[in-house]
Formats: sequence, C-alpha cells, structure tokens
Amino acid sequence: MVRVLVINGPNLNTLGWRQPELYGHETLADVEAMCIAAGKSMGMEIECFQANGEGELVDRIQSARGVFDGIAINAGAYTHTSIAILDALLAVSLPAVEVHLSNVYQRETFRHSSYLAKAAVGVIAGFGTQSYILALHALNHRLTQSTHA
Amino acid sequence: MVRVLVINGPNLNTLGWRQPELYGHETLADVEAMCIAAGKSMGMEIECFQANGEGELVDRIQSARGVFDGIAINAGAYTHTSIAILDALLAVSLPAVEVHLSNVYQRETFRHSSYLAKAAVGVIAGFGTQSYILALHALNHRLTQSTHA
Amino acid sequence: MVRVLVINGPNLNTLGWRQPELYGHETLADVEAMCIAAGKSMGMEIECFQANGEGELVDRIQSARGVFDGIAINAGAYTHTSIAILDALLAVSLPAVEVHLSNVYQRETFRHSSYLAKAAVGVIAGFGTQSYILALHALNHRLTQSTHA
Amino acid sequence: MVRVLVINGPNLNTLGWRQPELYGHETLADVEAMCIAAGKSMGMEIECFQANGEGELVDRIQSARGVFDGIAINAGAYTHTSIAILDALLAVSLPAVEVHLSNVYQRETFRHSSYLAKAAVGVIAGFGTQSYILALHALNHRLTQSTHA
Amino acid sequence: MVRVLVINGPNLNTLGWRQPELYGHETLADVEAMCIAAGKSMGMEIECFQANGEGELVDRIQSARGVFDGIAINAGAYTHTSIAILDALLAVSLPAVEVHLSNVYQRETFRHSSYLAKAAVGVIAGFGTQSYILALHALNHRLTQSTHA
Amino acid sequence: MVRVLVINGPNLNTLGWRQPELYGHETLADVEAMCIAAGKSMGMEIECFQANGEGELVDRIQSARGVFDGIAINAGAYTHTSIAILDALLAVSLPAVEVHLSNVYQRETFRHSSYLAKAAVGVIAGFGTQSYILALHALNHRLTQSTHA
Amino acid sequence: MVRVLVINGPNLNTLGWRQPELYGHETLADVEAMCIAAGKSMGMEIECFQANGEGELVDRIQSARGVFDGIAINAGAYTHTSIAILDALLAVSLPAVEVHLSNVYQRETFRHSSYLAKAAVGVIAGFGTQSYILALHALNHRLTQSTHA
Amino acid sequence: MVRVLVINGPNLNTLGWRQPELYGHETLADVEAMCIAAGKSMGMEIECFQANGEGELVDRIQSARGVFDGIAINAGAYTHTSIAILDALLAVSLPAVEVHLSNVYQRETFRHSSYLAKAAVGVIAGFGTQSYILALHALNHRLTQSTHA
Amino acid sequence: MVRVLVINGPNLNTLGWRQPELYGHETLADVEAMCIAAGKSMGMEIECFQANGEGELVDRIQSARGVFDGIAINAGAYTHTSIAILDALLAVSLPAVEVHLSNVYQRETFRHSSYLAKAAVGVIAGFGTQSYILALHALNHRLTQSTHA
Amino acid sequence: MVRVLVINGPNLNTLGWRQPELYGHETLADVEAMCIAAGKSMGMEIECFQANGEGELVDRIQSARGVFDGIAINAGAYTHTSIAILDALLAVSLPAVEVHLSNVYQRETFRHSSYLAKAAVGVIAGFGTQSYILALHALNHRLTQSTHA
Amino acid sequence: MVRVLVINGPNLNTLGWRQPELYGHETLADVEAMCIAAGKSMGMEIECFQANGEGELVDRIQSARGVFDGIAINAGAYTHTSIAILDALLAVSLPAVEVHLSNVYQRETFRHSSYLAKAAVGVIAGFGTQSYILALHALNHRLTQSTHA
Amino acid sequence: MVRVLVINGPNLNTLGWRQPELYGHETLADVEAMCIAAGKSMGMEIECFQANGEGELVDRIQSARGVFDGIAINAGAYTHTSIAILDALLAVSLPAVEVHLSNVYQRETFRHSSYLAKAAVGVIAGFGTQSYILALHALNHRLTQSTHA
Repeated sequence: MVRVLVINGPNLNTLGWRQPELYGHETLADVEAMCIAAGKSMGMEIECFQANGEGELVDRIQSARGVFDGIAINAGAYTHTSIAILDALLAVSLPAVEVHLSNVYQRETFRHSSYLAKAAVGVIAGFGTQSYILALHALNHRLTQSTHA
Repeated sequence: MVRVLVINGPNLNTLGWRQPELYGHETLADVEAMCIAAGKSMGMEIECFQANGEGELVDRIQSARGVFDGIAINAGAYTHTSIAILDALLAVSLPAVEVHLSNVYQRETFRHSSYLAKAAVGVIAGFGTQSYILALHALNHRLTQSTHA
Repeated sequence: MVRVLVINGPNLNTLGWRQPELYGHETLADVEAMCIAAGKSMGMEIECFQANGEGELVDRIQSARGVFDGIAINAGAYTHTSIAILDALLAVSLPAVEVHLSNVYQRETFRHSSYLAKAAVGVIAGFGTQSYILALHALNHRLTQSTHA
Repeated sequence: MVRVLVINGPNLNTLGWRQPELYGHETLADVEAMCIAAGKSMGMEIECFQANGEGELVDRIQSARGVFDGIAINAGAYTHTSIAILDALLAVSLPAVEVHLSNVYQRETFRHSSYLAKAAVGVIAGFGTQSYILALHALNHRLTQSTHA
Repeated sequence: MVRVLVINGPNLNTLGWRQPELYGHETLADVEAMCIAAGKSMGMEIECFQANGEGELVDRIQSARGVFDGIAINAGAYTHTSIAILDALLAVSLPAVEVHLSNVYQRETFRHSSYLAKAAVGVIAGFGTQSYILALHALNHRLTQSTHA
Repeated sequence: MVRVLVINGPNLNTLGWRQPELYGHETLADVEAMCIAAGKSMGMEIECFQANGEGELVDRIQSARGVFDGIAINAGAYTHTSIAILDALLAVSLPAVEVHLSNVYQRETFRHSSYLAKAAVGVIAGFGTQSYILALHALNHRLTQSTHA
Repeated sequence: MVRVLVINGPNLNTLGWRQPELYGHETLADVEAMCIAAGKSMGMEIECFQANGEGELVDRIQSARGVFDGIAINAGAYTHTSIAILDALLAVSLPAVEVHLSNVYQRETFRHSSYLAKAAVGVIAGFGTQSYILALHALNHRLTQSTHA
Repeated sequence: MVRVLVINGPNLNTLGWRQPELYGHETLADVEAMCIAAGKSMGMEIECFQANGEGELVDRIQSARGVFDGIAINAGAYTHTSIAILDALLAVSLPAVEVHLSNVYQRETFRHSSYLAKAAVGVIAGFGTQSYILALHALNHRLTQSTHA
Repeated sequence: MVRVLVINGPNLNTLGWRQPELYGHETLADVEAMCIAAGKSMGMEIECFQANGEGELVDRIQSARGVFDGIAINAGAYTHTSIAILDALLAVSLPAVEVHLSNVYQRETFRHSSYLAKAAVGVIAGFGTQSYILALHALNHRLTQSTHA
Repeated sequence: MVRVLVINGPNLNTLGWRQPELYGHETLADVEAMCIAAGKSMGMEIECFQANGEGELVDRIQSARGVFDGIAINAGAYTHTSIAILDALLAVSLPAVEVHLSNVYQRETFRHSSYLAKAAVGVIAGFGTQSYILALHALNHRLTQSTHA
Repeated sequence: MVRVLVINGPNLNTLGWRQPELYGHETLADVEAMCIAAGKSMGMEIECFQANGEGELVDRIQSARGVFDGIAINAGAYTHTSIAILDALLAVSLPAVEVHLSNVYQRETFRHSSYLAKAAVGVIAGFGTQSYILALHALNHRLTQSTHA
Repeated sequence: MVRVLVINGPNLNTLGWRQPELYGHETLADVEAMCIAAGKSMGMEIECFQANGEGELVDRIQSARGVFDGIAINAGAYTHTSIAILDALLAVSLPAVEVHLSNVYQRETFRHSSYLAKAAVGVIAGFGTQSYILALHALNHRLTQSTHA
C-alpha cells in the first residue's frame, strides 16, 4: 500500500484563526482529517506532521526515508527561506509535491521564490485546502503509475 | 452543466515529437481527448483550443466570456512574456488555472516568472499531462462549490 | 487634409465590460466614434484600427506609410513588451503619440516602462477616453504647424 | 469659475536661452501668457508660479488648497528626485497633471522615473509648450465634468 | 490589567559578554528585570521569553494569543531572515513593537531590512537597553488609549 | 538645563488636513505644544522648527551647534533623499533621534531607506504623534545619563 | 539535395525604406533573391519566408520539420523577446543560424540579449545582407560535412 | 591541551546515503571518528556535535565559550542563510574555521555566499571529508602558535 | 579679464568645525580668500558664493550667465542627488569644474556617483583645499587658451 | 592586395588538447594554415598571431595600423574582460570581426557580454574553426567592396 | 614521485613589505622555501613560480601539462578578474587548489567572487602562509589516493 | 629633490593618432616632455613610463618603492578592470594621483568606476593633457608640504 507523508510547516497549526480572509476557517485538524480520508479513498495511507521549527521539519523529512513513498509538503514561510529543507528533500529523494493554500504569486514578492521547488516533482498553489487533495491525487497517480508500469 | 475551456499556447501542438524526454510521447490530441473524458467523468463539458499566436489566444479568451465557467490554460512560452494574455484573463474574469507540463521552477530562470499567475486562481506545474486533470479537478471543485453554495 | 490613424492594441476591444472601475463603461465603438467626431471638428480625417495580435499591429503600422500623416496609438500590453511595434514605428517614421486610458505609472511596475515611447513624439496617459482627444489635439497642432509653417 | 494653478519648477525660468534645440525659443513669460490665454478661452482662470527651490514649490502647492481646483505642474528635475513634492500633492489632493516639454522617456534613464506621477491624474510629455495647453484641456474636461455631472 | 510579552531572539541570552563595545555590559536578566520593573511602574504586567530557535519563537508568539495584549520583540538576527516569525505575528495580530539595541541602520546592509516591521506597529532601534523601555511606553500608550478611548 | 530642538521637515506643517487616515487629525501646532509640555515634564527645554526647504533645514541644524544638546528630527520626505541633511547632522555631531509618525517600513519601498539614520543615535517610527514623545524620552535618558554619569 | 529555410521576422519586409542609414537600400525581395542564388551556387535549395506575427513564425518553424535540413533566421525584434520562437526551434531541432543585418551589440541594450541563440548553432551579426550569405555558407558547411562525413 | 569543537549542521547526519555521488559514502560517524583520531594525533581533544536546528546550533556555539579553544564548523545550508549563527560565532569570538565537503563555488549561486565567513578565520571547501582534517590542521597550527608564541 | 565664480554647496559653510579629521581646520572664509588670492595671481577675478539650499544654488548658477567665464563648483551632497543643479549648469553652458575636498570614491557608495559630472569639463577630487586651486588652474588654462587661441 | 591579420588570444594556443569535446581536435597551427590557405583562395594575404598576454595583444593590434586592411580576432577570455583591447581596436580603427569557436551565448553568463563587439564590424560565433573562414569571407567582401566601389 | 607546481600571481612578490598588518612579514622566498620543505616532508617535489602578468601565468599553467600532477595557485587579484586563467586551468585539467593568505570574504566585495574556483578542486583561504601548506596536504592526499587507489 | 613617476597605461602610446577628436593631437612624447618640463619648473624630477601590459605596470609600480616620492598614473582601460594595479599601489603606499585625459564620467558606464581611486590620494579627469600638469601640481603641493611641515 502506498504511504504518503503530509507535512505542514510554520504557522499552519494556526489555521482556522490565522487571517481567515486569506486562509479560510478550517483548522489544521480539519485539513489533516480531510487528507487522511481522501488518501483512504485513493487507497493510500496518509500520515500528517506539523512543526514550526526548521530543524524539526528537516528531521521529519529525513526519517521518511524507507517508510513513505511520497511527500506532500506545505512548508509555509520556509518555502522561501530554507535551503536546509531543500537539502533534506534532496537527501531522501522521495517524490515530493509543494503545496500552498494561497496563490503565493499574487502576494508579496518574497513569497514568489521557492527553494523547495528545486527538489519537488511539481507545485500546486492557490486552491485553499483543496490544494492538498490535488497533491494527493498527483502523488497517487505518480506512485501507482511508477509502481505498476 | 459546468463548461470549461482548455487552452494550449505556442508549441503545445508539437507534443509527442517535441523534446519527448521533457514532454513525453503523448500528442496534443491525446491530451485533449483525456481532458474531455476526464471532464465528462466529473460532469463537466470541456472544449479545447490551441494556437501559436498571442493575439489568437487573446481572442479566444475574450470570446469565452458568458460561454464558459472556467479556463484551464497552459500558455507555454507566453506565460513568461505576455501581458496581453494576462489582461485578457483579467478582462473576462473567469476562474482560470495556470497549467504546466514540466516543473518550470527547475528550468531556465526566464521560465520561473509568470504574468498569468497574477490573474489565475492557482498554479499547477510539473505533473506532465496529469497537470491538466488536476486543473480540471480544481476547477470542478471550485465551480460546483460556488454554484451550489 | 490631415489624416490620422488611431490604433488600439490587445484587449481594447473589450472596453465597456473590461474592469469598468478602471477603464469606464464606454465601448471601443464609442471611443472610435468620439475620435472620428473630434478629428472632424479639428479638420482631420480619422481612421481607426484594433487588433489583439502583435503581428497585425505591425502590419497596420507599416501600411500607414504614405497614407497617413500621424498615428495615435494605445498599444495596451504591447507597450511594455513589443520591440516589434517599436521597430515598425521607427520604420514608418510618422509622428506618433502614445496613449493610455489609465495612469500606467500608478499600476504594476511592469506597466511603467514603454518601448513605444522611444519612437513617439510624446506620451499622454491617465485621462480615460479623453486621452485620445488630447492626442488628436497634439497631432493636429504638430501636423498643421509643420504643414503651414 | 474653475481656477487652475500652473507650476513650473527648477530652470524653467531659463526657457528661451536654455538648450533651445531641446526646449525651443519661447520664454517662460511666453508660456505663461499662452496658458492664461488658453485658460481664458476655456473659461478657466489661470495663475502661474515658478521657483527653483524644492521647498518653495512645496509651499506653493500647499497654499493651493481651497483656492484652486486643479494643478498643472512641470516640476522639471524635481519630477525625478522629490518625494517632498509628491507628498505635497498627496496632501492637497487636488487633481494634478504632470507636464513635460520634452519626451523624457527618450532622454537619460534618470529622467524616466517620476515620483510625481504617483499623485497625478495623468502625464503629458513631449509636445513642447503645447504640453501645457493639453494639460489645461485635460484639467478643464475633468473639472467641468465633475462639477456639472 | 494590560499584559505585555517581551520576546528576545537568538544570541540575546549572551548579553553581557557578547561584543560589549556594541551591546553593553548588562545581561539579559538585567534587561528582563528592568522591563518587569518599568512595566509595573506603568501598570502593566510583563512576561519575558528568550529562545535561539526560530520555531520556538513562532510557538511562543502563537501562544500569546488571547493571553497578552501586546508584544515587544527583539528578534535579533531573525528580524532580517524570518518570514515565519512575520507570519506568526500576522496570525496573532496583537500590536507588536520591533526593538533593537543597536542602530541596525548603521551596521551591515543585511541588517537594514526587516520582515518583522511588516507586521509591527512600529520600530525602535538604537537606544541600547532603553529601547525596551521606550517600546513598553509605546505599547502602554497604545493599549490604554485603545482600551479607554 | 537640557535643551532639545524638535525639527519637522516638508509637509509636516499640513498635519491635521494631510491624509488624516494616515497621519491623524492633530495639527503641527498640537504636536509642538505636546512636545514642549512633555519636555517640560521631563525637565527639558524644547524648541520647535518646521520648514519645507532642504536648505533651511540644513541651516537650522547647523545653527543648533553649541545651543542645543540634542535633536529630534522628522525629516519627512527628505529622510530618504537628502544627503545634505545627513551631512549637516554629521557636522554638528549632536545626538539626534530620527522620528516618523507612520511605520515607514510598511509603505512604498522608497520610504524604507534613510540617509539620516546614518547620523542618528536611533530611529523611532510608527507610533503617530507619540513617536515624538518617545524620542524626547530617549534623548532625555541619553543626555541626563551622559551629563550626570 | 540540401534544403534550407530562410526566415525573416517582423519589419524585415520593410527593408529598402526602413532606416536605410542602418539597414541599407536593398529590399527583402533583393535579399531573398540573393539567398536563393547563393544557395544554388552552393548546391542548396533555398526557400524564403517572412512574417510579422510571432505565431506565424512559430507555425512556419514547426512545419519545417522533416522538410528542411537547416534554418537561417533573422527574427528581428523577436530575437530579444520571444521564448515561443526559441521553443519552436528547440522542438524541430534542426540546425539553425541566427542572423542580424546590424551589429546588435552596438545598439540599445535590449538588443544585446537573444533567446534564439540558446537554440542556434551560431550567430552572425553586423555584415548587412552579407550576413545571410555567411549563414548559408555556415549551414552548407555543416550540413554537407555531416551528410558526407 | 587544545580542545576543538567540530560542529555539523543540517542534513550532515545523512552522510553516507545523501547524494553519495556528491558527498561520498562515509557516514557522519565515520567523519567524526576520523576527526577525533586526527585530533588525537595532533595532540588535540575533539568533541563533535550535529543538529538540524538553527537554534540548537546557536545554543551549542554559545556553550563552547570558555570550554573550547576553537571551532570547525560545517553549517551546511545555514552557511548561506543564518545570521543567527554568524552572531553566535561573533559572540563567542573563538577562532572558527568554515568547512565544506563540496566546492560550493561550483554549485548553485545561492551556495556561493556565506554569512559565517564573516566571523571565521578562514574557509576550506571542496576536499570531501579531508576538508575537516585540513581544518583541524589549521586550527592546531593557529592555536599552538598563539599559545606558544 | 577672466572672471570665475566659485560655488560651494551645503555644509561647506561649516568648514573648520565639521569633521576636521576629514575636512581639515580651514574655514570657508580661508578657502575663499585663498581662491581669490590664487585667482589674482593667475590674472583672474574670483567671486565666491555659498548656500545650503538647492534652489539658491540653481539661482546663482543661472545668474552667472553673461557675467562669468567659468565656474568652479563643490556642490557637496547635491553632487550626488541634484538633477536641478545639473540642469542649471547645462542651461548656462559655462565651462564648469567639479571640485571635492575629499576623495569621494573612497567614501560611502552613494558619494561615488555625480549628476554634476555630466555637465562639467572635468572633476578634481581628494586634494583638500588644494582642489580649489587646481580647479582655478584648470579653468585659467582653458579660458585663456580658448580666448587667445 | 588585401592584407588581414588573424589574432588569437589566451589559451587558443592549446587548441587540439584543450577540452576537445568543446573545441575539437584541430591545433592552432591547423587553424592558422587553414586561414592562410582560405585567404589565398580569396586573394588575401593573411598573417597570424597568438598571445596569452593582454598587453601583447594590444601591442599587436596597434602595430597593425597602416600595415593591414582588416583584423579577424578571437580574443578568447579577453573578449569579456578587456577594455584595453577594445581601446586598441578603437585606436587603429581598422575593420575588425569578432570570432568565436563555440556559441558563447550557450555557455556561462560571463561569456555572453563582449567589450570587443563595441569596436567590431560584426560577430561570428559557434561554427568551430569554420568561424574563422566566415570571418575572412566577411572581411574580404567588405574590403574589396570598399576598395573597388 | 608526485610533482606539484605552486603558482603565485600579482603582487605576491612583494610579500614581506606589502601591507604587513594584512599579509605578515614573511617574504615570497620564505613562503616558497616553506612549500618546498613541506612538500619534501610529504614526499612531493615542489616547483614555485611567480609573475605579475596575466599572460605569463596563463603560459606557466599551460606548460604544467604532462609535467606536474597538481597545482596550488594563489592568483591574487586575478582570482576575481581573470577568465583567461580559469580557461588555462580548464585546458590543462590538472587538480588545482585555490589558495589565499587572507580571508577574502571579509574584505571588499569585489574580492568575494572567484573565476578560478570554477576550475579548482577546492578553496583554502584565510590562514596566512599556512594556507599553502594546507593546500599541499590537500593535493598530496588527493594525488596519492588517486594514484594508489 | 622630490621625484615623481608618471605612468601611462594601455593605448596611451597611441596618443596623437588615436581618436584625436577625443584625445587631441599631442603624442605621448609631447605629453612626457611637457611633464618633465613642468616638473622641473616646480623643482621636481620626473620620470615617465608607458606599457600596454597589466603585469608590466604592476612591475613598474612595485619598483618605484624607495626611489620615487609620488606617482601620477593614467592607467587607461586598466583603471576600470585591474585589481592587480590597485594592489600594487596599496603595496608601495606612495601618494598616487589618478589622471584621465577625458571626462570619463561622460563616457560609457563601464568607464565610470575605478579600482585605482581606492588607492589614490585623488582624481583629476577631463582636462586633456593639462590633467597631468594639475596632477604634478597636486603632488608637488602634497610632497613639499609633508616634507617641510
């Protein structure tokens, strides 16, 4: 069975009360439950992780090696500043999908660049919590294709 | 019934023989058939259009007004150079999803920026032809949510 | 009799329904009729042209040679991206006035630069449809001065 | 009756003998007389002011509040360097038109940017002394429209 | 009673022995005691926190929500590099004052920019440990004004 | 007795009617009276000066030498453009505090840089008219410390 | 027999009357006849094409696949702005030579960069109409070498 | 006896399985053992530390004060992004040598700059695990020189 | 008899007490006396002027037209910021020599650029008060050459 | 008889063994012999020169004055860094053609710019040793045209 | 026996009297003797070369081909400006180590970049004359490893 | 007796026939004779040197140590590109004056920057051959002042 790790970075634990006009009213628990359910319906096992620390996120990505088949990651602010997380993704070399709730390309210029994208299969941004579901679809398609084909 | 216009820009008519190591072996006809079938399975009517000319793409976007409910657009090279297509999308103000076959953020620097993203709901890049299917999912979710809710 | 060509570029055919809070409610037909009437009142013959394609605008500028005495051009998005239109204006070397409905200098940075201005007599921006009338006044003054003087 | 203040900035008092190949042979007195006459013919009362000092120009703009209905301003070199004049225009919030004799976009790069344009209704550049008349037309159109409509 | 959280970021725990010619000889304990005393004299309850980790600072800011009325934060090096702390401040949306011991604008260029300032009420820099007291004055003024007015 | 000169630069004489949503409704006279009162309560003698001209501000700073013990200066727009005022502050070498009503770091990019900060003890920005009081506190603390210690 | 397509881009149809001090007095017909004759003398069959539209140039490059053995292209202004033409050349992957009449490196800075050069065998610029003949020599040498060797 | 702390930053705990074509097959344990042995042979006591978190690295550097005589640090990705680690090194002011396994100057541009180098005695990059041994030689030479001389 | 105007800009009236380690102990009166004496010894009549205001310097340069044969100008901080003074020099078109006491190219980057140099015969920087004497020599050589030759 | 000097700059004496996958297997002697033969067949006398030193190249260019009718120059690395060679070419003002073996526009960014091109008739790059032959054709055409016409 | 060439570039012949506070009191002869002795103790034969000319350094590097097994090079100022030396190192393709006496990353910005590093195995900077010994260690390790393994 | 070395860099040996509209008709021999004569009249012994090679100029500057009291140097193109010459001047630490015939600040941008100026007492540019005489005056003043005072 395909296993996917869903990682959320800094401040995503505040979903629900953080700038709801931008991020909506669903909580991280809602999002994680939605991911697990969606994963199940696609025949994937989902595990979720959130941390505000760059080092903890690096730790978690490293430990995914040999355990998970793919990663969906919304690294929040670290998307734009963390070479360490990029290096962790390069080290584990699992297929990873970069996820964003908002369309970061319409926000401040410092949110347009991504270190992560250099290690990701692809990027999905702007669809709210639906971005996660799309990322799971993308991983499922890729992992079952590459497993079966 | 929800209607979505799938637009492909310059050189996407050469899919199948264009740099297959980068873009794969499926032709544009394959991709369009896949989109129509996937749309049908989601209960959406899909129409496809491709042109190499910036002006023709602007024309087609304008004429989508009042006829379609959403747009999935892979503007190819014009993504990075065309303010005219951006302005056309702003003019019709339909929900649009920016699509890319390849992960443009891993290619030449001039493919990292996007004028289109300023008028798009969101961006999906890097999943090969699957990117289109993800875009249709995203539009379907948004349009049926906003129609029913 | 002085003859002036009024050229409108991409998306100006959507005037009336395009972002009316920015561009107003008058249609392109209204603007063209207003130009023709204003031209007549100044003793000038006006012809109008609009296209969304860069190549068609280049074609039209080239064919103005020997037929028109001046050009008023709102090249829309191509103002900022088209060296080809700049070259066409340099080739015909007719007095040209760059026109904009909005004050482009208060909008996105990518709308602040102009290739066209390098080939234009001058620039008029920010006065809505009145910008065209001012451009016709400017051309009329220049052409009748240089014809009579 | 509509009242408009015509402001000229540094070195415009040398018109007539300053680089005549660029600025022509008319003096500032000629230009101001022309403005007053043109204003009268449009039914507007014109007052003219020139100073070489940034502070004096700021003073004059501030004192226009409640006395004038609009401003036509050729701030000369301060167009490109003075945030203080920008702030003065923002403070009085009268409709202002930025005027230039020459097409500044064809001159040195440091004359391409404008702080003033951020507070102006629009910009008119490149038509010699006719630029002022066009600015008065533009202000007249705007002020009588907004007064009567 | 108004409650304010005083946050110190990386290396501020080394005050007293860190580059004393730049930061003085007072320890962090001295500064925190001074803040608590000054807060008390203004009728505010002060709590102090220091951490060297970006994630821990994000955690602490988040947990201030609903408990404190304002934040005085010297994020040290993270001022210039942490979008995550900016996002945490935006999430809690408490009035925050950015504090610096030294006049960062006279030091290396990379210390001139601040992500934090985008989420702060204001900035106080350069007054040594007195900067904290001024920040508490500022918060007290703002919080009691907005409470009473 | 400690004597402090409070200097206000261009357009600060329009406080009260200038963009009140940004700058509030208090007039410069109100601010100056508040400064004098606050200074008195701290045992300092305050003198106030405002000018719109860069040269006049340079003159006033120079003449403060030997007469005042410190300067609180809100140079307004000249903060960002005037090397001459920087040089004047360097010449008199009195402790100076840079003051801003608004949080300039949240406004246009050209308001983020400061020549003045290179000659100032520190910077206080974003607290409305309270910024002046904080600056007086800072100067008082520094001057009485250095006088008595 | 080796077949080469000679492509001319925007405004090259105005050769003869376009800025003759820069581009000379020969017309496009002259240049094309010269190319055909020179090609014949080298034993190559030459076909010529000119268009002002970016999309039409993309179309023509695509259709050269399987029909021509090489391309000599003077893309005019699109050299500097068209990623779409670059992508078309990458798609057909025929040996292409970039040609310019003038020494573009001595003109405006925006004419110094070339997207096309990234897909071209080489660049020949500055020799007037002789640039085309040199390009045909280069293609002939390469194609007959690679055919015979 | 001279004591040196060898610090490794993010992802260096994955040595052995991380991109072995770039970083080789030795594990961090191998490297640390090699350092301890080499240190012993030079008469130095070596202690090793690795962490993925920026804050933990700051903590460890701070605690080296008064305990160690020098530091060899491979801060990995934080080399290029962490002002906090730079500040920690400045605070402890022990001689530190910046170490890299790979020649960072031949990799992505964002790996060319170093905050750390501003606080380091020197830099050694590109010699694989041998870089650490060279760093220990350098520290040994410096520390025994300065102790004995 | 050749007449030369020596102009000093902002803060040069503070010579003698302004940063004497950088500018020396001579006052502006000393410098002006030295210039007058040196001019007399070269057979030139010298007049001196100093102002802190940009507008006053523009005024003075304009009024030199027809009265003086050359200008030696140390515009101080305005060298780097004033397009208005550049324009005044271009307007009077007298030979002007740009003078600096210090070697501005060894100071802050913002003192390396000069608007004035675009209108000056040449630049003399770094020789203390001797820079003025060298400028008078240069003007004398040029003016007597061009008068006599 | 037309005389042309063929100049090769640094490292071109290593042709044959230098990165043959990039520069091929022909030696400099081969290239020079090929140039002499090709020149003879065009009726031109060719002389060849190579040096690794910038100064020697400047010397050789200067001494070509009055002896040669044109120059073909592959300045290698100095193309991108030597203003001195540019100045030498400007000084002799002989028609010069810039030659490159490889398509420099597809290599590192620092090889895209050329000081030489500012003094050259034109540029030929990317055709291997054939680039020299094309340059000789171009010079022959130009020199015999201008000699005979 | 392993043979290594130690190359010193411009101004390194002045060691001993050149800015001794930065470069120490040892002469180049001292450094070269130290290198030869250290090489001998490692079982390597060392030859030393110094030149101030870029071309002579290129010559010497080229002639090392087939004679030496490795190069230690302190190219001094040419490190930052010479593409020709980079190309010479690429041509000989011997393992080369870039050496610097001072920590160039703490000096002027123009000393932070290195063309040489693109062709070097690694970089050693900041350890005074010890940098050379470390480079010899590094080369010895690499060359004996690659010889024996 | 004061001894001054006058150094001329690349292409200054072509004075007289090099772009005479820019550099005049005097030869280098004329300039050197003029310098020797002027030096004599000031009581200084002048020696002149010219070379086209960067390395030779470095050599000559180094050998001036202990022999000359000052240097006047027109390094031509190397002014803008040679860190090696800067370092040579820093090494000898003799007072040096940077000289230019033309006003380099009115020419191409790449002639505006100077590495040399960082090691020079001052800069004199734009006065033709008179620039050298002014430099000798400056050196004479400085050297006799410092000798006698």
